[in-house]
Amino acid sequence: MSFEPTDYLPYDFANRRHIGPSPAEMAEMFTALGVRDLDQLIDETVPKGIRQEEPLDFGKPLSEREMLHQVREIAGRNRVVTSLIGQGYHNTVTPPAILRNIFENPAWYTAYTPYQPEISQGRLEALLNYQTMVSDLTGLPVANASLLDEATACAEAMTMAKRVAKSKATAFFVDANCHPQNIAVIRTRAEPLGIEVIVGEPEELDASAVFGAIFQYPGTLGRVRDYSDEMAKLHAEKAVGIMSADIMALCLLKEPGAMGADIAVGSTQRFGVPLGYGGPHAAYMACKDEMKRAMPGRIVGVSVDAHGNRAYRLALQTREQHIRREKATSNVCTAQALLAVMAGFYAVFHGPEGLKAIAQRIHRKTVRLVRGLEDAGFAVEPESFFDTVTVDVGLLQRGVLQAAVHEGVNLRRVGKTKIGITLDETTRPETIEAVWRAFGIQAKDGDFAPDYRLPEALLRTSDYLTHEIFQMNRAETEMMRYMRRLADRDLALDRAMIPLGSCTMKLNSAAEMMPVSWRSFSEMHPYAPADQARGYQALIDDLNARLCEITGYAAISMQPNSGAQGEYAGLLTIRRWQVARGEGQRNVCLIPVNAHGTNPASAQMVGWKVVAVKCDENGSIDLEDFRAKAEKHAAELAACMITYPSTHGVFEETVREVCDITHEHGGQVYIDGANMNAMVGLSRPGDLGGDVSHLNLHKTFCIPHGGGGPGMGPIGVKSHLEPHLPGNPVDGGGAVSAAPFGSPSLLPISWAYVRMMGGAGLTQATRVAILNANYIAKRLEGAYTVLYRGGEGRVAHECIIDTRPFEKSAGITVEDIAKRLVDCGFHAPTMSWPVAGTLMVEPTESETKAELDRFCDAMLAIREEIRAIEEGRSDAEANPLKMAPHTMEDLVRDWDRPYSREQGCFPPGAFRVDKYWPPVNRVDNAYGDRNLICTCPPMSDYAEAAE
Amino acid sequence: MSFEPTDYLPYDFANRRHIGPSPAEMAEMFTALGVRDLDQLIDETVPKGIRQEEPLDFGKPLSEREMLHQVREIAGRNRVVTSLIGQGYHNTVTPPAILRNIFENPAWYTAYTPYQPEISQGRLEALLNYQTMVSDLTGLPVANASLLDEATACAEAMTMAKRVAKSKATAFFVDANCHPQNIAVIRTRAEPLGIEVIVGEPEELDASAVFGAIFQYPGTLGRVRDYSDEMAKLHAEKAVGIMSADIMALCLLKEPGAMGADIAVGSTQRFGVPLGYGGPHAAYMACKDEMKRAMPGRIVGVSVDAHGNRAYRLALQTREQHIRREKATSNVCTAQALLAVMAGFYAVFHGPEGLKAIAQRIHRKTVRLVRGLEDAGFAVEPESFFDTVTVDVGLLQRGVLQAAVHEGVNLRRVGKTKIGITLDETTRPETIEAVWRAFGIQAKDGDFAPDYRLPEALLRTSDYLTHEIFQMNRAETEMMRYMRRLADRDLALDRAMIPLGSCTMKLNSAAEMMPVSWRSFSEMHPYAPADQARGYQALIDDLNARLCEITGYAAISMQPNSGAQGEYAGLLTIRRWQVARGEGQRNVCLIPVNAHGTNPASAQMVGWKVVAVKCDENGSIDLEDFRAKAEKHAAELAACMITYPSTHGVFEETVREVCDITHEHGGQVYIDGANMNAMVGLSRPGDLGGDVSHLNLHKTFCIPHGGGGPGMGPIGVKSHLEPHLPGNPVDGGGAVSAAPFGSPSLLPISWAYVRMMGGAGLTQATRVAILNANYIAKRLEGAYTVLYRGGEGRVAHECIIDTRPFEKSAGITVEDIAKRLVDCGFHAPTMSWPVAGTLMVEPTESETKAELDRFCDAMLAIREEIRAIEEGRSDAEANPLKMAPHTMEDLVRDWDRPYSREQGCFPPGAFRVDKYWPPVNRVDNAYGDRNLICTCPPMSDYAEAAE
Repeated sequence: MSFEPTDYLPYDFANRRHIGPSPAEMAEMFTALGVRDLDQLIDETVPKGIRQEEPLDFGKPLSEREMLHQVREIAGRNRVVTSLIGQGYHNTVTPPAILRNIFENPAWYTAYTPYQPEISQGRLEALLNYQTMVSDLTGLPVANASLLDEATACAEAMTMAKRVAKSKATAFFVDANCHPQNIAVIRTRAEPLGIEVIVGEPEELDASAVFGAIFQYPGTLGRVRDYSDEMAKLHAEKAVGIMSADIMALCLLKEPGAMGADIAVGSTQRFGVPLGYGGPHAAYMACKDEMKRAMPGRIVGVSVDAHGNRAYRLALQTREQHIRREKATSNVCTAQALLAVMAGFYAVFHGPEGLKAIAQRIHRKTVRLVRGLEDAGFAVEPESFFDTVTVDVGLLQRGVLQAAVHEGVNLRRVGKTKIGITLDETTRPETIEAVWRAFGIQAKDGDFAPDYRLPEALLRTSDYLTHEIFQMNRAETEMMRYMRRLADRDLALDRAMIPLGSCTMKLNSAAEMMPVSWRSFSEMHPYAPADQARGYQALIDDLNARLCEITGYAAISMQPNSGAQGEYAGLLTIRRWQVARGEGQRNVCLIPVNAHGTNPASAQMVGWKVVAVKCDENGSIDLEDFRAKAEKHAAELAACMITYPSTHGVFEETVREVCDITHEHGGQVYIDGANMNAMVGLSRPGDLGGDVSHLNLHKTFCIPHGGGGPGMGPIGVKSHLEPHLPGNPVDGGGAVSAAPFGSPSLLPISWAYVRMMGGAGLTQATRVAILNANYIAKRLEGAYTVLYRGGEGRVAHECIIDTRPFEKSAGITVEDIAKRLVDCGFHAPTMSWPVAGTLMVEPTESETKAELDRFCDAMLAIREEIRAIEEGRSDAEANPLKMAPHTMEDLVRDWDRPYSREQGCFPPGAFRVDKYWPPVNRVDNAYGDRNLICTCPPMSDYAEAAE
Repeated sequence: MSFEPTDYLPYDFANRRHIGPSPAEMAEMFTALGVRDLDQLIDETVPKGIRQEEPLDFGKPLSEREMLHQVREIAGRNRVVTSLIGQGYHNTVTPPAILRNIFENPAWYTAYTPYQPEISQGRLEALLNYQTMVSDLTGLPVANASLLDEATACAEAMTMAKRVAKSKATAFFVDANCHPQNIAVIRTRAEPLGIEVIVGEPEELDASAVFGAIFQYPGTLGRVRDYSDEMAKLHAEKAVGIMSADIMALCLLKEPGAMGADIAVGSTQRFGVPLGYGGPHAAYMACKDEMKRAMPGRIVGVSVDAHGNRAYRLALQTREQHIRREKATSNVCTAQALLAVMAGFYAVFHGPEGLKAIAQRIHRKTVRLVRGLEDAGFAVEPESFFDTVTVDVGLLQRGVLQAAVHEGVNLRRVGKTKIGITLDETTRPETIEAVWRAFGIQAKDGDFAPDYRLPEALLRTSDYLTHEIFQMNRAETEMMRYMRRLADRDLALDRAMIPLGSCTMKLNSAAEMMPVSWRSFSEMHPYAPADQARGYQALIDDLNARLCEITGYAAISMQPNSGAQGEYAGLLTIRRWQVARGEGQRNVCLIPVNAHGTNPASAQMVGWKVVAVKCDENGSIDLEDFRAKAEKHAAELAACMITYPSTHGVFEETVREVCDITHEHGGQVYIDGANMNAMVGLSRPGDLGGDVSHLNLHKTFCIPHGGGGPGMGPIGVKSHLEPHLPGNPVDGGGAVSAAPFGSPSLLPISWAYVRMMGGAGLTQATRVAILNANYIAKRLEGAYTVLYRGGEGRVAHECIIDTRPFEKSAGITVEDIAKRLVDCGFHAPTMSWPVAGTLMVEPTESETKAELDRFCDAMLAIREEIRAIEEGRSDAEANPLKMAPHTMEDLVRDWDRPYSREQGCFPPGAFRVDKYWPPVNRVDNAYGDRNLICTCPPMSDYAEAAE
């Protein structure tokens, strides 16, 4: 019969969802590259010697429907119990408008870090709102745009204090009331840096013995006290005072700034960001004005554009590790932008009245709970509290905890006889009654007189969130439109390729994103009993096993929640192994000059000395120099850190030799996983000789960048290192993050990606990523020089375009080209890294040939615009490159330029009807740093700028 | 203590989510209106005599969190069982990218019907894709942009056949193989029109006796046969042949056009639209070219704009009821745009290869199922099938059905001894095995030889979806960007007020929208056993009770899935009651001339004669004329249809008298509920004398408009009419829709709205809707004449702005003003209705004063632009009004106009940075109708237009 069964697989999204070029497009690309097929290209690109022997085989790839079916089953194994554990994690209400319009909206979650301010004004404004919120609530003038989690922020505050304190002491005081995970991460960070950590009650502080001190506010067991005296003592000794403060409590309680604190840190999770079994959430940091240049993380600031109009951009970027490299002492790179945006919007949604009322309701509920306990004769501490109390139940501890779980409530085990309880904005009357029942108390009627148990002297007297943005009309219509306007100002992956070398901006598919919003993943407390998290455990175990298979490692730790933190965790793991072997003296780390900027910073964080290794003219490691330095430092050689394929986009054939040399001299090999997108299925770092690698799940494994975070940087290690991986932050040693699995609510994304692609699909993604990069390199040949190629003239998954010659020939800088690409409707490639004055292009496998061609057309047209300058046909200043990017305002204004509006605004590549318009002209970075403003300016200024 | 408990309610979104003006804004508005407070304004606006006595009291309004908690509990009472019932409803896979980027995206779901083509190019393109898909798959050249459901489409096809057939017969043949609900709705529609319905096997067709015939393909029990002979016979008798065809089956089977069918109808639900317990889904209709002007519903067509560029718009609009009024014979008004867009994207996602492969897989699974049954000795019919078979099990029927439910599968009960089974793209091997087990068969191994049971002669030989849009690269990245580009071309409620009089474009809040996507609502089959739908029933009962309370009626039918269908269902109910009382002769319907265009059309659909009643100079019903006509037609008076407050935006004080007169003369009163947004909590149609009303849940009760559907038009009736409400489409009489509860998956939206607002909140919404309208009327005073005001000079919730004088004074038409408003960033108000040459403005309560001011600023500036023409300061043709709307292309082009770019593109009201740009200039409607194209033009044309 003529039925002709088709072999087209309708749900074969492994080859349709993530693989950009269609088969027909690929055929055209092979022709352009002069290869027979993809196999040939890969053979020419990836040296035989480094290829893995067995293909990845994960069985049949799952369809979207099958994947969702399976992940739903896994989610069902989690048991969502109302957690009143507190300890820095709280249930919260995410306003549905925020959930849907931000958290689940690709315009927000697919954006990149706002390094290109002209195409990032929307999220920069949202982050400025967040900073203003943090600054107001903490009472400190400068806030950054978020850190990874509260515990990391505490550790960062400690090292920041070390940098700014005039005290010569080397010890750091930690309030015993700090959350255990904060203490754990501080200890981990302090140890390799030679900082002595003194844990004690605030009353025990000897300010003369320390360069700084941190206090938890309220304390982890609920204590609320004033730290003004401690701050004064510290200042008298030129030491730095830090407070880790609950952002919700600050809506009612005296703010750290008013107590004299120099730095405040904390989590903004409870401002509308789901628990997610520990993350992702945004931690905040704020400080006094004089310390701002020592603050880690990104800071959004206000500047002006080329026409003098208000424009936002990242301020003080010279502080960042990717600029300072060897001098950096923090490797903070990823922030939690998406979550900070959500927390900021939570404050915009509620305004100061709303936040205050929420905080009051939480407190009133806690008072009611406590009254019930006290009336029944229980000993409740402390006398004054905000939302957290502790009850000494003696031998009943186990019974009460079990009874609570039976009632659907998780309480906190404190010591051997106590139970901690923390309420939040979601606590229902039934929950309070359930707690009472767990304590054997029958339900009380609800008629408690309004009563407050906050210390009078600690009530907040200052205003906050007085800026107009927090006073705006909060009708949902207005809020929805505000979120849409901000989103529309930005260029994210949902509109155009973001060809950022080393950043791997690939598709975050809708199917992969969906489970993240499910309650069974999002409403889990990180310290909930393990038997409630069987779904998470199963998912993590399965993902771990596959990542081990992909990388050739024996074990994975999911704890690091950014790539840089993965590096740090990996080096720590090496260091601990060496210490355990009695080789604690090893403290030299060889790092080639083309390494990621975070590498040296991470090495310094574990107390190592960085020794730079040269590269040859092709950008590859200079093997002789490497060998020489390994030999020279053999006695102290701790490790080398290399990136594979190299940051120059080349598969170096010498990689195994580099590993061997390192091992021969007693060192361990850290292979940076940033470029895993060029390796998956073709080559395994573990096979090449690596002992540790981190994986950027937010690059290779489809977790979205969120406009600058979240991220996930798990590390894989060889078996000898496994016992030295980071421990549990609450009851293990060596934790690097606040939560045992970092930001686990993101893991369903990577799991879904790996399962839906299958082994062959993942490998094909790698191969097409290489194809796409080579296609771009080919099309740009003649117009641009592509730096660094492999043996057969191929690049890996990215290529470096040399734009340095144009500075001399036409006065055109790499920045001019980057900004001109905005006119063409593109986010610029990575600028000036790893080679100053160049552009590094990484298209990823997700982009279609049509989109690659649009980009190449744009680049070729730009080359012609440069040529016109070179040949004197175009003015040296008044040309489309120097005046880029062009805004709609430019079109409306009188046009007195020697080129036409058409030429200025619609260069090749630019969409016509669907043109993206940057809201501002080129932003003046220097102006903003000279006149630093990093909270929201008055609304009247906006109006001026707008009119 | 100084804690000062605040009385600010943080979650009091009843007054923050839906109420636009803030308290401070309201105070300013009171001053502008010269009233003390809202009470005074309402007293001046709403006559005492029509006010309801008791305030609405639904208890405490629910917070978002509490609402979601409760609706989750309700959803949990639904039991989602795998339904293999078929009968026109199938499980389907909604691609997550479509679910998230369209179904859950306010840019799509908050849009209005694309009557203003310049701001609707995105969804017009999406609907054109849909039409092309329908046209290709049915093999008929013209398709419309969707109808309400398949059963309604069958009935519409019948009346269309009646209009176009040259046969003089008055009977209509219905294939006994049609789905029962199709037959039921055809019967309902036929009866009042005097059409005799002959149901029989196709073999029994006597073509000479009928004006048309409809056949189901495949038949409801699975039969697949060729209808070419029947078509030939019908054509020989000048009768019309209709096929109701399964869109998925058409991917494999010979298409209706190839059999000679004149019209094809069917459902596109199984192209990615969730079951939703019956709706909403898009039904399709396609026809031969010569019949296109008789086709009901909207048709998207291709035309050109003022610069000759391609532009889409609704074609042949003169067919529509709101233009033809008394001459209309279909009241079709709402389509299912959002669902049609989804189905169209499903086809774009899969392409012809994908669709064919999906259809083949469905068939192969069915063959496997059947082989198992046959091997066990069961008698399976028919021999050839696509996805549906019937098994005669004799006395075992009940046992097998129960066993199936026990296995988690719903099968279809057919007659007393048979069981129907229909598979779909989601059927898993486990499900087939579960069916076998229900039949007592143990699982087979899966090794069936590929085998096909489709009749060779009926295999499709023609191509389909050959247009480039269905051949595009289907990488998700590309699809996501395509969806985003289309969305960005349109102006929806997520960017600006849509002040459409009578259409009530109010906030559709995110919290209300969320449950719609939940599986426990979306994956229910409409004919699933009632005990599986207890959640739905509870929700519907609760919503019904509250709607009864709001309207003053005794009972509600949720069946009508559009406002116009509600009218029709309401009149049918009256008619049945009258027939039952022996007053079947009553057939005159009094309708004031200011009625909605659907009113007369609906009256004619129940076989009534329309007698128009005059209005006085204030737009109110001319009471004398009404009385005279009621008296004159007393013997035949069936009903009157009035709208309250009037379509002129006035609370007529005479409404009770109108009702009394009608009742005195034996008629019933239909009060059109389109303006309920001005009544809820203040006045009840049931109290005023109404016997029936429909409610537009997609207006007053927050169901989004979806760019032209879905809608819900339930009717409320007094108790005497209750027994005559529409019956169950499968086993009751008088059904008007295919599903018992219309489009029930939308009902959680209205339920959530009502519960979160509470009685006081709903009433406040009404009051603020009136405030907002009066504020606009006030601000425009002096510049424009506001037609029609109530006794104290107030308008109700909308106001009519008279723009007729400007045609004479400046040559400016209402259309010029409407298009100029696009430049200001607004969707135009309702044009030329209810008074030609005017604009009717309805702001709704959701809009803030700031947005109202933006609109008024725009309108006042437009008035000044008109004045400049009047005074000769502005050219009569080359002025910003005549040349509106302005596009970005206008800015780029040479500008040879007597006004500046700035004046042209940034009139007051327009955002600066966030400016909305229409993608085309003014669209030429006449051109498009002269050169009708209503499928996608070749891509090369697009490229031309784009370049």
